[in-house]
Amino acid sequence: MKQNGFYAQSGGVTAVINASACAVLETARKHSDRIGKIYAGRNGIIGALTEDMIDTSLESDEAIAALRHTPGGAFGSARYKLKGLDENRAEYERLIEVFKAHDIGYFFYNGGGDSMDTAHKVSQLGSELGFPVTCVGIPKTVDNDLPVTDNCPGFGSVAKYVAVSTMEATLDVASMAKTSTRVFILEVMGRHAGWIAAAGGLAGKDPGSAPHIILFPEVPFDQPRFLARVHASVDRYEYCVVVVSEGLRHPDGRFVAEAGGQDAFGHAQLGGVASNVARLVKAELGLKYHYALADYLQRSARHIASAVDVRHAYAVGQKAVELALEGHTAIMTTIVRESDDPYRWSIGHVPLDQVANQEKMMPREFITEDGFGITEACRRYLEPLIVGEDYPPYLDGLPRYGGLGNIAVSPRLA
Amino acid sequence: MKQNGFYAQSGGVTAVINASACAVLETARKHSDRIGKIYAGRNGIIGALTEDMIDTSLESDEAIAALRHTPGGAFGSARYKLKGLDENRAEYERLIEVFKAHDIGYFFYNGGGDSMDTAHKVSQLGSELGFPVTCVGIPKTVDNDLPVTDNCPGFGSVAKYVAVSTMEATLDVASMAKTSTRVFILEVMGRHAGWIAAAGGLAGKDPGSAPHIILFPEVPFDQPRFLARVHASVDRYEYCVVVVSEGLRHPDGRFVAEAGGQDAFGHAQLGGVASNVARLVKAELGLKYHYALADYLQRSARHIASAVDVRHAYAVGQKAVELALEGHTAIMTTIVRESDDPYRWSIGHVPLDQVANQEKMMPREFITEDGFGITEACRRYLEPLIVGEDYPPYLDGLPRYGGLGNIAVSPRLA
Repeated sequence: MKQNGFYAQSGGVTAVINASACAVLETARKHSDRIGKIYAGRNGIIGALTEDMIDTSLESDEAIAALRHTPGGAFGSARYKLKGLDENRAEYERLIEVFKAHDIGYFFYNGGGDSMDTAHKVSQLGSELGFPVTCVGIPKTVDNDLPVTDNCPGFGSVAKYVAVSTMEATLDVASMAKTSTRVFILEVMGRHAGWIAAAGGLAGKDPGSAPHIILFPEVPFDQPRFLARVHASVDRYEYCVVVVSEGLRHPDGRFVAEAGGQDAFGHAQLGGVASNVARLVKAELGLKYHYALADYLQRSARHIASAVDVRHAYAVGQKAVELALEGHTAIMTTIVRESDDPYRWSIGHVPLDQVANQEKMMPREFITEDGFGITEACRRYLEPLIVGEDYPPYLDGLPRYGGLGNIAVSPRLA
Repeated sequence: MKQNGFYAQSGGVTAVINASACAVLETARKHSDRIGKIYAGRNGIIGALTEDMIDTSLESDEAIAALRHTPGGAFGSARYKLKGLDENRAEYERLIEVFKAHDIGYFFYNGGGDSMDTAHKVSQLGSELGFPVTCVGIPKTVDNDLPVTDNCPGFGSVAKYVAVSTMEATLDVASMAKTSTRVFILEVMGRHAGWIAAAGGLAGKDPGSAPHIILFPEVPFDQPRFLARVHASVDRYEYCVVVVSEGLRHPDGRFVAEAGGQDAFGHAQLGGVASNVARLVKAELGLKYHYALADYLQRSARHIASAVDVRHAYAVGQKAVELALEGHTAIMTTIVRESDDPYRWSIGHVPLDQVANQEKMMPREFITEDGFGITEACRRYLEPLIVGEDYPPYLDGLPRYGGLGNIAVSPRLA
């Protein structure tokens, strides 16, 4: 019995989540004898809850292929977490009702830990309600914080962006240090886990090379030791490059980003760990600083995506469809590392209940003893993930990113 | 009579200033029958004043060639402006003394308006002191604010970075707008002139496409009209993308940034206009925002340099040496636009006194009547400057940027 599939993107988007979407759609088209149409949720799972689904069968093969090199979320994503089954059973029932109305027997959910939890619950409730749905999670998160999978698609490209940007900004500040900026600070994402900040460490390998300091969310911010290190770096190399995670905290647990006074409009100054650290450097050491805040640029920078990451993203999507058609359910596809050097990997899978609602932190042995850098073990882990370039096509100087028609499926429910 | 040459980089560095350096050195090597060694100033003009010069003849052809794809300033740059001849004649006399001691008959100064002023004065004083120096300026500034030349090497690459980043961040925020960020703000450089902010406008061409608002330093910040525009954009498209220049000012002339502090030239140190504008949006409209501050990343992003810009940068350096050898002096090389479409250009030159200490602002007809966008005329001007990619070589996922030995010339003076 041929059933349709539903695909949704969840949470913050990445430079390569559409490569996973591309894989799901292309693989499903290859198996059109066994799987019907793939509907996509407009704005993620909300599209299913509101029965606002996109009929991807109306898109050309070329448009689907272009997703592979297009950042952002092609169907819209959502920061929307379904509550527990007990608290909000109605929402899950509604999902099953929509799936039933459109004969959806496959649910592919592309997201992080929360999404895996949702996919797991849908699989449980479907069986309970007599409408079993094959639920397969596809990992995605720039934060790289999903357990079991070696790494998360999206992370490798952010890591490459941060490493390249740190390297380039270092060449800039090194040129200017004699008469101008001494301290450059790059703020990167990663509220709980320092994976992205760690990637900045790939910019330099030799002793003394930048970044001279990495500030991790896992290591409480020790101001005096930090300032001493900045001072020593400027003393020795004329300048200091710092990569700081947005999740850096004071020893008492407060985010460093929260400190601050008032801005020009008289509003409380909340934003920016980099700006706060920079002002500290200026106030305590009197050094001229510059800081950059990469924000969305880091996770949407498809122009400098990691080729390995793109391949990972495609592979976890492709395998999700294949495993679903083989009868697997309530699983998430994973990246399995088989060796570091040469980097070899394959795609595996794990039961959803082993990954739902969990966060993988940086192992302490990935951070140097002084807390300001990455170890060789960390390098061995990170290095393969940024290898290779996968440039989008360009026209007149700009990437030719794809766009879909995103035509709605006619609703069948009230 | 074969004399040596002196080359120095000045002011903020760019992704392609080393391509100009590469051209100067390669062209001089081709004419080694007529020009001796090229010495480079360590940290710009300061290297000449302190007789701390680099002997570029000790670098291999391969190392010189790699400068073409290496961002930053290979010999160090400086924010150091020589005062007027009357105020500080001694400094100019010192320069001539050093040039004389090392038989330097050619001075190539790679910088902006201030540097052209310095080069002009050196040419005047050399003649006056009986040691004539052939002085040729090579344009460089991401701000694109030099007069006469069609555009400034360095600008095209920043423009491409800003256009691509705006395009990518737009795909991100568009995916998330339903449940998360509604307003995304990208802060870019350009203290006085809005050229870089204007480049953000290249990200979208169709009516309604992002960026929905560009805030130029040339247009006083009209808060109520800005907020109304943000509101309308969110209303219509679900989100709003804003590109804002660091030099945005209130109607009374104050910078919206106002970070406090001064740079080496006594200019107010900016930083933080995006955060101020973002907080205004939050306070007045209650919309969730994100903002990015590209800072040095934008001008060092050699990985996404414009191929046209790289060619310009090389050509103005090459021609500088050729014109010097033809006997021209007290000139700056320029880029001459011959047609927009297809883009055709050549290298010309202009007397230094016509470019020294001048700033080219955006023409009013490049900004839409409402002050929030760019016109077709602006597009026609900007579009050719970002065309083509000129990727650096990569190894293990990172650009293989060059590095020089930078070995000092033995001093001959006390």
